[in-house]
Amino acid sequence: MWLSARMQSLGWTLQEWQDAYGAGQQPEQLLGELLRAQSLDDAAWISLIEPATLAAECARLQNLLAEAGNLAALPLYGVPFAVKDNIDVAGLPTTAACPTYRYLPTEDAAVVARLRAAGAVVLGKSNLDQFATGLVGTRTPYGAVPNSFDPHYICGGSSAGSASLVARGLVPFALGTDTAGSGRIPAGFNNIVGWKPTRGAISCRGVVPACKSLDCVSLFALTVSDAEQLALIVYGEDAADPFSRASQAVVMPRPLGPLTLGVPAALAWFGDAAQRQAFEAACAALAEQGVHLVAVDYQPCAELAHLLYEGPWLAERHAALAAFLAGHADEMDPVVAGIIAQADRLSASEAFSAEYRRQALKARIQHHLAGLDALLLPTAPRLPTLAQVAADPVAVNSQLGHYCNWVNLADCCALSVPGGFRADGLPLGLTLVATAWQEWALARLARQLTGLLPGPLGATGRPVPSQPLAPVLAPDHQILAVVGAHLEGQPLNHQVTELGGYLLERTSSAPHYRLYALADGRRPALVAGRALPVASGSAIELELWALPKAAWADLLAQVSAPLGLGTVQLADGRRVAGFICEPVALEGARDITAYGGWRAYLAAQSQPEQRQGRVAC
Amino acid sequence: MWLSARMQSLGWTLQEWQDAYGAGQQPEQLLGELLRAQSLDDAAWISLIEPATLAAECARLQNLLAEAGNLAALPLYGVPFAVKDNIDVAGLPTTAACPTYRYLPTEDAAVVARLRAAGAVVLGKSNLDQFATGLVGTRTPYGAVPNSFDPHYICGGSSAGSASLVARGLVPFALGTDTAGSGRIPAGFNNIVGWKPTRGAISCRGVVPACKSLDCVSLFALTVSDAEQLALIVYGEDAADPFSRASQAVVMPRPLGPLTLGVPAALAWFGDAAQRQAFEAACAALAEQGVHLVAVDYQPCAELAHLLYEGPWLAERHAALAAFLAGHADEMDPVVAGIIAQADRLSASEAFSAEYRRQALKARIQHHLAGLDALLLPTAPRLPTLAQVAADPVAVNSQLGHYCNWVNLADCCALSVPGGFRADGLPLGLTLVATAWQEWALARLARQLTGLLPGPLGATGRPVPSQPLAPVLAPDHQILAVVGAHLEGQPLNHQVTELGGYLLERTSSAPHYRLYALADGRRPALVAGRALPVASGSAIELELWALPKAAWADLLAQVSAPLGLGTVQLADGRRVAGFICEPVALEGARDITAYGGWRAYLAAQSQPEQRQGRVAC
Repeated sequence: MWLSARMQSLGWTLQEWQDAYGAGQQPEQLLGELLRAQSLDDAAWISLIEPATLAAECARLQNLLAEAGNLAALPLYGVPFAVKDNIDVAGLPTTAACPTYRYLPTEDAAVVARLRAAGAVVLGKSNLDQFATGLVGTRTPYGAVPNSFDPHYICGGSSAGSASLVARGLVPFALGTDTAGSGRIPAGFNNIVGWKPTRGAISCRGVVPACKSLDCVSLFALTVSDAEQLALIVYGEDAADPFSRASQAVVMPRPLGPLTLGVPAALAWFGDAAQRQAFEAACAALAEQGVHLVAVDYQPCAELAHLLYEGPWLAERHAALAAFLAGHADEMDPVVAGIIAQADRLSASEAFSAEYRRQALKARIQHHLAGLDALLLPTAPRLPTLAQVAADPVAVNSQLGHYCNWVNLADCCALSVPGGFRADGLPLGLTLVATAWQEWALARLARQLTGLLPGPLGATGRPVPSQPLAPVLAPDHQILAVVGAHLEGQPLNHQVTELGGYLLERTSSAPHYRLYALADGRRPALVAGRALPVASGSAIELELWALPKAAWADLLAQVSAPLGLGTVQLADGRRVAGFICEPVALEGARDITAYGGWRAYLAAQSQPEQRQGRVAC
Repeated sequence: MWLSARMQSLGWTLQEWQDAYGAGQQPEQLLGELLRAQSLDDAAWISLIEPATLAAECARLQNLLAEAGNLAALPLYGVPFAVKDNIDVAGLPTTAACPTYRYLPTEDAAVVARLRAAGAVVLGKSNLDQFATGLVGTRTPYGAVPNSFDPHYICGGSSAGSASLVARGLVPFALGTDTAGSGRIPAGFNNIVGWKPTRGAISCRGVVPACKSLDCVSLFALTVSDAEQLALIVYGEDAADPFSRASQAVVMPRPLGPLTLGVPAALAWFGDAAQRQAFEAACAALAEQGVHLVAVDYQPCAELAHLLYEGPWLAERHAALAAFLAGHADEMDPVVAGIIAQADRLSASEAFSAEYRRQALKARIQHHLAGLDALLLPTAPRLPTLAQVAADPVAVNSQLGHYCNWVNLADCCALSVPGGFRADGLPLGLTLVATAWQEWALARLARQLTGLLPGPLGATGRPVPSQPLAPVLAPDHQILAVVGAHLEGQPLNHQVTELGGYLLERTSSAPHYRLYALADGRRPALVAGRALPVASGSAIELELWALPKAAWADLLAQVSAPLGLGTVQLADGRRVAGFICEPVALEGARDITAYGGWRAYLAAQSQPEQRQGRVAC
């Protein structure tokens, strides 16, 4: 259902919500208007909060704000969201799209609790393929969710409702889950961002299990930046979820030179020419803009994808639901019940054999990924109509998982991002895949790609914001201030980028620094304050890079005397780690403070007439 | 069987082998003598190399040495070892203690290849519980292996032969495997060191699988130092083994203050009073020497231990051997065949349910371990006779696993070390357990404990070497030179130890440094060479600490200006990372070079009469 243009918050990004509250708008008004515009006739919703609950939430926000002191401390203050109905929200029933399964949780799932603590407000619970078993969004007694661009087509699932609501701008973000692709398929079919984290990165406490060893909570948003901000808030180890994992500061050296993406040497489309053409067009556009696309062997991924639904992981769904299934099989969606029931026949010995095969395929896939920035895939090989799915529900569903099913089995993370449109006006989703804990690198990559393939925000018709937000400081990274040969484009910058470092911000030092060119002429030294022959200083050009914590020892090993790493004070007063020098550095060095930075000095050096004079050193 | 005292290499440690070759002894002579002293009548051996093979190996060593240039580059040059007969050695049959299973491998297992590349020489293949299914060392058609202290008692298994040979000094080290405790139990029963690595740390390529997801190759040696040296050589990711893992630079903050070990609040002994008394005596001795012992809840460990042999992991043994079992069950050890056959009845759904339980218990155990340096356990709750095992083979075996079975399921590493002797003269093994990748910390701890509980080397009667070797630089660690407040015992040393740093070496800087006391009086600054008002310098006292690479970013964040980290040159010419200072540090600083180090300066400061004079600054 479409809303009237009078509702001002339709299709807002997180930044716009923050701006609105910053400008003095009130949650009562904005959220009240938004809630009144929603309807349970919309197949995307299974339940909505009551007006009284909204009032209580607004009171809660007031308290939160009073405690926090200012809006900046509550990044999601008054931001509404939808929660897939296999994730608990205290006070709203959890159904997993199976009315008989329904229960009323008294506690929020861990991920919901984190979002609410940051100021976000649950509007309701969204529709899904029952027990998250499906990639279609039609296996639900609450009504098949239509595609947000054309209601004859499927929305994709299992997180159908969440994706549909975000695509239409009815909420700025929503939670999904992703075991086989449920957080990516509906993002791809609705022109939004689907963030499938590393397994264990977001707690699954309070989530109805599908395959417990593979389940992930996923994020839907209109932009990569929004998803990134949300991920920063919801990531974190949870001692109460045994499958939760502490994030690892993995150093994943990236290839030098242009952005390099792997594309399967052989692609399957199951007869959907529009999907194929759109993917080829996207690849051509990326290649034209300098992205390096290399063919990779997709066979191990395809084999692993099959293993998920044809191997013993089905038994996980059985293990999760065996007790319920025994008494209620006839109250379940018949396709879902049929799938789960077959899992009964598998032996533990077969399960272990399949686990061995998984390990072997995972190792091969991770080896393929090692030389790439990421793998680039169509999110789905085809975009079927509701009628096509109804005609052959299991086979079509299985086709949809071709580019998704293997990702959790291979312990990878993935981002589905808008990739342009097909000839028929339906959206194409592109999925980027990398090994565990590389999602922050994927996000930076996705910003680049979506910049190269601009399109509207979801199905809202709104243009993407012209000013993208700055990259975030990813977890397990620390800021490094660089001043000379490590600046972007300078000869030693590769020491930072090869170790996974990325540019955060261009700024300058506090005003009490001086800059010297070392006697070797190839590196400068940043020198603090008072210790100088000349008492006054200046603000010196700096770049702030984010470097994985795990990489600092290796970076330091590459920094040769008389340079080192210490503390640098920035123009805004912050103190960060950065390049410093030993006293011996000043011997034979030239004071180049007046240039204001290493780049200006180098530029002047390359113009012979400026070498003498102009700047008295 | 006991050897004549004439065989000079009996009971040699690695250092003694190295010293012998360094003094000009030849492999032909030392290894020839050693091989002639071995016999296949010894139940510890299943096969031995031929004299012709030894000659070929000696020729290979000559080539290796010619390539390497010097002995120091081949840490295991001419060092003999035994290989458990479920690990492939090219040219020797692999039987897994089942004659019908026998095959002749053409390639060395990955771990054997690494050892041979470092100069080690395989003497033969050692006896084991068939298919490594057992902890007793009696389930083998090649003859039950007796305890090396009293032949009425079991050797323990499954790596019985390897442990027995090392204990008796017939080889300085041997390879075992450890799924449920096979690398620890026989070490504990024979007074030697059993190193059970983190799963995946040592490649299992070329090893007959027991439970493929849990199997580890293990190391037996006479001393902790020897095991440490061996581990440095054999650790490493192997792309061809899907269960292999890259080591992780985990920062595991340790508690401040005394060494803190967890001991189960409730201990099981299954009637073996001698075992209980010996363990209590060891604990008392440790406590008396300042080790802090705290009671921990062993229930989750005990439950996990049961899960291994009563849960679905048996199905892994079935998955590994199903094809062989079908045709050859009657040719197998009846106890082993019986155990594996029962695994057939388990379903995949049960396997996943058990996996969920495992995850939950693992999380609880890792939580318990977080506040400790390690868990301290008896390696086994009892030491049975051969007759006791024969009377009730399954039940006694199961009791033996009480302190072992859970360790691989919880993704922990463990070291079994000599822990003194029981009243009846039989040895007690102590096991230290920590979370994955902490074995290097366990090894340092084990050096301390074995220092507190001195005893003979294995069953050789030789005393432990009085000069323990220096600690090794563990993988994923880097050297940090400290000069002032971070020295051992100084106020900021905790910044290093809390991040997992440990002292490697006391040394001094190259002679071109000067030392200054900062104006704040609390920290010194090490200043290199030429940049000084005074041209000459001095060698300054330094300590070299090993710090996990993952911890350097956190350390740097704690170092405040004007200090930083850069490059420091040592007296022996090496350049390592270490504390440096910015030029501004010298303002108001006092030149204290003449003291030769921060400690000497502080000592002088605390003696008022020395404050003036003596040293002209």
